[in-house]
Amino acid sequence: MTAAAPSTATHAEMASAIRFLSMDAIEKAKSGHPGMPMGMADVATILFTRFLKFDAKSPKWADRDRFVLSAGHGSMLLYALGYLTGYDDLDIEQIKNFRQLGYRTAGHPEFGHVSNADTTTGPLGQGITNAVGFALAEAMQAARYGAGISNHYTYVVAGDGCLMEGISQEAITLAGHLKLNKMIVLWDDNHICIDGDTALSTSDDQCARFAAAGWATAKIDGHDPEQIAAAIAAARNADKPTLIACRTVIGKGAPNKCGSEKVHGAPLGADEIKAARDAANWPYEPFVIPEHVLNAWRVAGTRATDERADWQARVDALAPAAKAAFNRTQEGRLPDGWQAAVQAFKAKISAEQPKVATRKASQDALEVLTAAIPEMIGGSADLTHSNLTNTKACAPSIAAGAFAGRYIHYGIREHGMAAVMNGLALHGGFIPYGGTFLIFANYLWPALRMSALMEQRVLYVLTHDSIGLGEDGPTHQPIETIAALRATPNTLVFRPADAVETMEAYEVALLNHKGPSCFALSRQNLPTLRTTHNADNLTAKGAYVLSEADGKRQVTLLATGSEVSMALEAQKLLAAKGVAAAVVSMPCWELFDQQSKEYRAEVLGEGCVRVAVEALSTFGWERYVGLDGAVIGMTGFGASAPADKLYAHFGITADAVADAALARL
Amino acid sequence: MTAAAPSTATHAEMASAIRFLSMDAIEKAKSGHPGMPMGMADVATILFTRFLKFDAKSPKWADRDRFVLSAGHGSMLLYALGYLTGYDDLDIEQIKNFRQLGYRTAGHPEFGHVSNADTTTGPLGQGITNAVGFALAEAMQAARYGAGISNHYTYVVAGDGCLMEGISQEAITLAGHLKLNKMIVLWDDNHICIDGDTALSTSDDQCARFAAAGWATAKIDGHDPEQIAAAIAAARNADKPTLIACRTVIGKGAPNKCGSEKVHGAPLGADEIKAARDAANWPYEPFVIPEHVLNAWRVAGTRATDERADWQARVDALAPAAKAAFNRTQEGRLPDGWQAAVQAFKAKISAEQPKVATRKASQDALEVLTAAIPEMIGGSADLTHSNLTNTKACAPSIAAGAFAGRYIHYGIREHGMAAVMNGLALHGGFIPYGGTFLIFANYLWPALRMSALMEQRVLYVLTHDSIGLGEDGPTHQPIETIAALRATPNTLVFRPADAVETMEAYEVALLNHKGPSCFALSRQNLPTLRTTHNADNLTAKGAYVLSEADGKRQVTLLATGSEVSMALEAQKLLAAKGVAAAVVSMPCWELFDQQSKEYRAEVLGEGCVRVAVEALSTFGWERYVGLDGAVIGMTGFGASAPADKLYAHFGITADAVADAALARL
Repeated sequence: MTAAAPSTATHAEMASAIRFLSMDAIEKAKSGHPGMPMGMADVATILFTRFLKFDAKSPKWADRDRFVLSAGHGSMLLYALGYLTGYDDLDIEQIKNFRQLGYRTAGHPEFGHVSNADTTTGPLGQGITNAVGFALAEAMQAARYGAGISNHYTYVVAGDGCLMEGISQEAITLAGHLKLNKMIVLWDDNHICIDGDTALSTSDDQCARFAAAGWATAKIDGHDPEQIAAAIAAARNADKPTLIACRTVIGKGAPNKCGSEKVHGAPLGADEIKAARDAANWPYEPFVIPEHVLNAWRVAGTRATDERADWQARVDALAPAAKAAFNRTQEGRLPDGWQAAVQAFKAKISAEQPKVATRKASQDALEVLTAAIPEMIGGSADLTHSNLTNTKACAPSIAAGAFAGRYIHYGIREHGMAAVMNGLALHGGFIPYGGTFLIFANYLWPALRMSALMEQRVLYVLTHDSIGLGEDGPTHQPIETIAALRATPNTLVFRPADAVETMEAYEVALLNHKGPSCFALSRQNLPTLRTTHNADNLTAKGAYVLSEADGKRQVTLLATGSEVSMALEAQKLLAAKGVAAAVVSMPCWELFDQQSKEYRAEVLGEGCVRVAVEALSTFGWERYVGLDGAVIGMTGFGASAPADKLYAHFGITADAVADAALARL
Repeated sequence: MTAAAPSTATHAEMASAIRFLSMDAIEKAKSGHPGMPMGMADVATILFTRFLKFDAKSPKWADRDRFVLSAGHGSMLLYALGYLTGYDDLDIEQIKNFRQLGYRTAGHPEFGHVSNADTTTGPLGQGITNAVGFALAEAMQAARYGAGISNHYTYVVAGDGCLMEGISQEAITLAGHLKLNKMIVLWDDNHICIDGDTALSTSDDQCARFAAAGWATAKIDGHDPEQIAAAIAAARNADKPTLIACRTVIGKGAPNKCGSEKVHGAPLGADEIKAARDAANWPYEPFVIPEHVLNAWRVAGTRATDERADWQARVDALAPAAKAAFNRTQEGRLPDGWQAAVQAFKAKISAEQPKVATRKASQDALEVLTAAIPEMIGGSADLTHSNLTNTKACAPSIAAGAFAGRYIHYGIREHGMAAVMNGLALHGGFIPYGGTFLIFANYLWPALRMSALMEQRVLYVLTHDSIGLGEDGPTHQPIETIAALRATPNTLVFRPADAVETMEAYEVALLNHKGPSCFALSRQNLPTLRTTHNADNLTAKGAYVLSEADGKRQVTLLATGSEVSMALEAQKLLAAKGVAAAVVSMPCWELFDQQSKEYRAEVLGEGCVRVAVEALSTFGWERYVGLDGAVIGMTGFGASAPADKLYAHFGITADAVADAALARL
């Protein structure tokens, strides 16, 4: 992999190809970020022509090196590399239509749009943290299938922005702690941020910072091919992850504008591009790459063809069970038989009718599921004993040099956990779940958004899901969080009412390939409400009539999670006054909204008085209760006291639910 | 300040007083976190008896040292110190009713509940970042009024959790960059996190990390009084901020359980507390502090009485203008005359009717406001030229050793920016505003929640507020963000339609002392809609009829921000079909919800068909359009293309608005 420099074109020409495609595409789009692709063109050229293991004709090869453009605004670097090395979905028309509707070449690289984007980047710090997930997945795959099957590097191009974002600290400390030595960060050390010189806002010694987190570091001239090559070669042999500080000139190649924030995020203009062509001796028309240069790049795109064939042969030679497991998990298919375990669990719960917190029900469900589905990887942001996310099947915990286990101690790094889980899911082979308190979903929300945008099967176990957590008080009581999660596209938000619904929620989440799922789970014990076993997954409908009215329905009581049993109490209070009310359990709004109009009308009860109850922000419930209904919930922050006292204090009670209904009859 | 050790009680006894109050209160509450208060009792005793400048009888003294318990779960440390040193609002009944409804002693320290909480802590990493704001405010006050008026330290007690959270990196790099040498962090280096040994999840060399960010560092035995005192004394003389790694035993004093995660977050139990009493030779009943120990602590609480009197004399001796400005800004009162500038601006806009983006209108408004209100402090998370947050009055920018300016380059640290702004606001004397893209409010949301929970006047300038940002694509187009902000209690979310509404929004925000305000501002140009000057602040009503129907109203079109002009177009389309529609501009839901029922009915139009349009998530709009109305907006993620193409692609057009109304007539 380290030899085979191209023979027919010079390094300068190959780097110029990146620079001029970037300049020309951004100029034509009248928007974009030329500074980074131009500044990092030399580094990328060395990496892609001498080191990166990839096959442009097989973009999803499982054992390819991953390349993460964490500084996603420099998307033209990725698109130029994709076109030059010969990816089928990145022809010159895509480059010419950068940032245009209906083309794959979006302003920032979008996973699923272009096949050479291993992850979506742009929100700074996400990519470098996804990369920790990639590197971790690689090590975990190697522990399972051997180094012949999983043996790839994860390269990251990161800018100052990525390293200034707090999430980067969570990433690098976790990578250093786990000694993910196949992770290599190429830092575009150009001394420029958007406001101007980075000295406006930072004085960090980045190499010292990374070293403090257990990384190897190097400083190089990011325009010197041999320094670049030597640093990468050394990094590949390090026993730790490596940071390579590549001192570059932003917008290198733009003779008048380079080295300034002016080239960061705006087209260079025709005059400057002409000057750049003159300076680089690049007489070609816009979007034209001379044949000898393109050929050299295309050769780079096929360097690993043989290596890939050898790898495939090794996969084919795996023992049948290992081979089947590898292929199955790569394709994201679940193992046979797991749903039988789901049914058995549900039947057992309905029979035994335990009174348990849904966080405990979640643990019981996870015990069953992790035993049946070996690709599930658990973890928690240092709340294992509270989230109840660990299971027997997940032992032992992951540690440096010990990657056969299935449980990750993410540390007090919620945001990092979520972005690492995105990397694990994107890498292939694993289904990650991770726990924290629901309130701390606020901390990880930007990464959860990326799970949703990339449609990744990531499971968020969010316990202590209301004022029901009690004494920890307002700082720890989620109010607005659930509304935010529900407003996030592609995201399923479950708030199960009992252990049966909890397992059903997991079943839906595991079957859903179109995005993440969140489980809002109680700290406090709740009765089993689904006391008759039903093989159908009622939670999959989003909402259903848990208890129909006795007589012609006058009132519909809508509730989720810990408040469903309260709604059942209210139903009794109303019945005592001769009012016929139905109770609807509504564990997942998004799924309910996907049901037929008829089903929704039947569940909600046309013409009925509707009262919703949920011990969280009332925001959004008008979708179901309309202008005339009532919502019993929180409109301000919580307080510190035992949970029962808080429910009474905030007027979230069966009496309040019943009274709200009576007032509307 | 450094002498005057207590003469009548030993250090061990004084520290024991903290430990036993913590043990007893947590035991009585049956919940809480004894590990940290017990582990840090020695450090706190030295700090509070020898160094901390405070006067228990004057908790809001402007020049007091700030004390931030960043590891807020250790709240009993703060409450014990407050009781022991003699704060009037922290009597023994408060200690005995720790974590109970109606008492100030919440599970985590809540600003505004107990007078010795300089900030609310508990969500990890927030406190240490607030502290950067405190230290910065101190330096800025000193630059304005002299060291005789502002000369105090900011001490932080931080745990491993605070240092693992990403926001801590944003905090320490900013503090190091600005050389905030009066910031001193006492790290409770106890090697224990909730899951167990910190070695489960981290291997950082914290001192090296802080040094890389420009901090001085020291390592001490956190139970050795003289080492503690020497380290604090050295830190006070450093020319950089200082980290003191205090090696402690978590739960020190609990003979059997100390040094383990078991003492972190649960009561010790009667047996262990008895064993602790025996081991410490502390024969006193629960909640009883012997007189000689309490007296010694009470002496510590009055150590700075004379110093405070001297300081008051210096304030009284300030030149009249400076004295007036100091007192006014400390009290949070705005200067005379600023609202005349608001009126002049509004009149000018209505007359000139510019077509400008609301981000530009915001800049124009800020030019006026920052000139009139010298305590406004601007900044941006490295998007100054996009957020348009800088003004002439704010120059020059803040830099190390140069604190007279009024503009902060926060760097690419949105979360840190928000938490630093909380510190600036809490400190007193300043009104911070800071800019980023609306989508990156996701990154700063946990700190914005703290602005809201603490009811702080912090202004969030959130530009590029929809798919109208265009080519940057889905990663940068907010969808769900505005719903989350609207669901957050105590938060005003403005989405102004033109320059007049923009200024009106700022006026409301500056007059609001009960929480933060967010301004969602367009990238793209918008016409002036308020073309007739009105001295009344219509935005203060939250929503108002911008254009009444011609004839009896059949349709109400509700819109915010950039879509208000679209609603006006739709109104014309409907008029052409003989349908009388009114257009309601709805810049702030929260304010509208506070209006009288009659006003709301009048604006919304009882019995009218209602259609809302907003180029963001449709989530929540049913509150106004009900079950039968329509909401034109986004239900999925955006795309990368010029803005006008995106509006058409996603069906957010005047035609679509008109059609939705017609379909419902």
